[in-house]
Amino acid sequence: MSSASLLRAAPDVIATAARRVMARCEELARVSADAASIERVYLSPEHARVNRLAAEWMRELGMRTWQDAAGNQVGRIGDPAAPALMLGSHLDTVLDAGRYDGIAGVLMALEVVRLLRVPAGEGTGDGWTVPLPFAIEVVAFSDEEGTRFGKALLGSSAVAGTWSDAWWDLADADGVSLRQAFLEFGLDPGRVGEAARRPDELVGYLEAHIEQGPELDRAGEPLAVVSSIASARRFQLVVEGEARHAGGTPYDMRRDALLGASEAALAVERICSAEHHIVGTVGRFEAFPGAVNVIPGEVQFSLDLRGEFDGERDRVWDALARELDEIMGRRALRWRSREVHSAPAVFCAPLLQDVVAGGIRATLPPRSDAPPAIFSRAGHDGMSLGAVTDVGMLFLRNPDGISHHPDESVSAGDVAHGIRALAEAVLLRGTERI
Amino acid sequence: MSSASLLRAAPDVIATAARRVMARCEELARVSADAASIERVYLSPEHARVNRLAAEWMRELGMRTWQDAAGNQVGRIGDPAAPALMLGSHLDTVLDAGRYDGIAGVLMALEVVRLLRVPAGEGTGDGWTVPLPFAIEVVAFSDEEGTRFGKALLGSSAVAGTWSDAWWDLADADGVSLRQAFLEFGLDPGRVGEAARRPDELVGYLEAHIEQGPELDRAGEPLAVVSSIASARRFQLVVEGEARHAGGTPYDMRRDALLGASEAALAVERICSAEHHIVGTVGRFEAFPGAVNVIPGEVQFSLDLRGEFDGERDRVWDALARELDEIMGRRALRWRSREVHSAPAVFCAPLLQDVVAGGIRATLPPRSDAPPAIFSRAGHDGMSLGAVTDVGMLFLRNPDGISHHPDESVSAGDVAHGIRALAEAVLLRGTERI
Repeated sequence: MSSASLLRAAPDVIATAARRVMARCEELARVSADAASIERVYLSPEHARVNRLAAEWMRELGMRTWQDAAGNQVGRIGDPAAPALMLGSHLDTVLDAGRYDGIAGVLMALEVVRLLRVPAGEGTGDGWTVPLPFAIEVVAFSDEEGTRFGKALLGSSAVAGTWSDAWWDLADADGVSLRQAFLEFGLDPGRVGEAARRPDELVGYLEAHIEQGPELDRAGEPLAVVSSIASARRFQLVVEGEARHAGGTPYDMRRDALLGASEAALAVERICSAEHHIVGTVGRFEAFPGAVNVIPGEVQFSLDLRGEFDGERDRVWDALARELDEIMGRRALRWRSREVHSAPAVFCAPLLQDVVAGGIRATLPPRSDAPPAIFSRAGHDGMSLGAVTDVGMLFLRNPDGISHHPDESVSAGDVAHGIRALAEAVLLRGTERI
Repeated sequence: MSSASLLRAAPDVIATAARRVMARCEELARVSADAASIERVYLSPEHARVNRLAAEWMRELGMRTWQDAAGNQVGRIGDPAAPALMLGSHLDTVLDAGRYDGIAGVLMALEVVRLLRVPAGEGTGDGWTVPLPFAIEVVAFSDEEGTRFGKALLGSSAVAGTWSDAWWDLADADGVSLRQAFLEFGLDPGRVGEAARRPDELVGYLEAHIEQGPELDRAGEPLAVVSSIASARRFQLVVEGEARHAGGTPYDMRRDALLGASEAALAVERICSAEHHIVGTVGRFEAFPGAVNVIPGEVQFSLDLRGEFDGERDRVWDALARELDEIMGRRALRWRSREVHSAPAVFCAPLLQDVVAGGIRATLPPRSDAPPAIFSRAGHDGMSLGAVTDVGMLFLRNPDGISHHPDESVSAGDVAHGIRALAEAVLLRGTERI
């Protein structure tokens, strides 16, 4: 495995690129539905605004740009007839989000294009400073988090050709369906299939992303190869009891949905934490009617379940379902669940794991052991892209592992390392030195 | 204790009165902020509409009517110079309410006036079919449930002269303050003190209400004397942890506010249910940021605590606070609480307990034992009125104890018994036959 640098770029050029990424992360953070926090969901006015900004930045690099049929913003540069190496990540956010999750990966991909291309008016070849056998596309995916409709990876599912018509009736918190939101955004639901890419159009998908966990920070490593992306399932659960007067109803007549759901949330923690590499999270939790003096008759809550392996994840869900039967039976409550998302574990392509590792080696001081390779408990757009092309990922150190939170951070120095490593990985893939 | 009937009214007149109460309960149920359920909160357009209806029904009976400075609707009949026996209950509701809680008591009081007064154009005395040494006022209290501002008994607190200026900044779910809501309803916050009544203006307060519990239904009794009204405290609690990525954060780094709050809700059940006559309810429960893939960083929830005796209730709260310290300490969470309502237990006046018991005796078939006397776990307007006058209450059987729920019910037959018993009680108080 080569660790020689293929990149013809001075350190100060890369440091400038990293500063530009950090400044643009700040700029995008200001595009928010909420003045006091970062909130940018699928098919919102904020989505349209960041797409316009990303398109502008793509065109500055000489890229041809378009918004695809699912609202993803795409830029392309290089031989129009060649297959493309796709780089990217997403620009949508959770509620009260940080500045870097997804966003940094899109902006780093643009800096990689800037480092590898021949500036306008210079050069005579295929437009690259090092000849590459593919075009490069940068994609800013429109929905990875699933914040608005509960279903994650909508943007990349459209690109992977795995969009399901069953999703059109998913509704947001205001009751707006996905179909209606498409129309209001100016997209045609009947044409979503046009966003799908064919395997022969792509040579692979490479994404840089903050780790969203503490492992690299704990190990003192700035960068890692991602070996696989967690398998995930998401459920919406409903517990039904009976709304009654909080004062007049003695304990032996209560069927309190909140207490059943509270036991359920604690059972998720108990069962998942007893397993290796399984995490389960109840993130949404709403009690109805939600009055101070009324026993809750219904609770709706979400369950996000992730594991390194599909089988282990499914076994945990089965154990949880048995536990819920026991809890709700004991409390004379009913429960039901609806699966709103399911994604198998995606294993990164060995070739792309090798080029990412080679990119890290070419960037960081020489070492005798291999760069760290870690499993991602967080989901990523690559989970969808795996259906249509090879997937590789580069992780950046995430201080304290704080993500999906305003305090989420990454250092400019690590972003500089990441930009260089991603550029080296693209060159390794293109020059087949690996 | 007398059990002879003082009421000159034929059974069919009382049956007609009961049918009118049932029909008016249906009519008021249609005055709702929500088309699919019953929702009528303090200072809302629906509050204004039911006040207008109640005033119209009062005027039909020859009563002088006014809306007081806190939005309570009042009707008065009898000697303008005499003190008044106050009858009443409330017309506001919880969310997704039933038809009878409070409402039935107001409408039954109007039927008592109808039974006792001399119809217009008849008689020559003080206007009563049986001479009474007091006027009668019927009050439809404007806020008993505390649904909108979290603080219960606002309407009756104004009448009792115990309104607190600390309440003006209480806000509803949309952030509208109580002060602002007063202004929007057309009331002047600076004049709320004008709603207060002096002790020498009143001879007592009598209220009929459904039990909101199963005891009478279980015992096969249609009516009961209320011996006391539960002491109550209400708290808003906040649990703070850290919002982090649901996938990337391993269990040893989680500070999940939802799990702490779930343990708290279960502790409320465990500690309260181990005591006699204490109930604790978590009715509101909101997790933030409330996204599927984010560990909740904060939960806000309510606690409603009721007991027969203040001391026992306070001892339970202290035990709960110690338990919350333990739970949150173990989970590295912070918690805080704010008391939003506190009402001591109110013991019904012995004289008014006697007249209510006499009214029940005069109404139901002869019995050798005393009519049932029960403690009300539910709060009532009488808790406020106790500060300014004697309080007595009559409970009606509530099938299955279902209250604060659309299925809340009372039978027309029991309402007829209740109207007669309340009228007999008024006559017993007025004729001092007890």
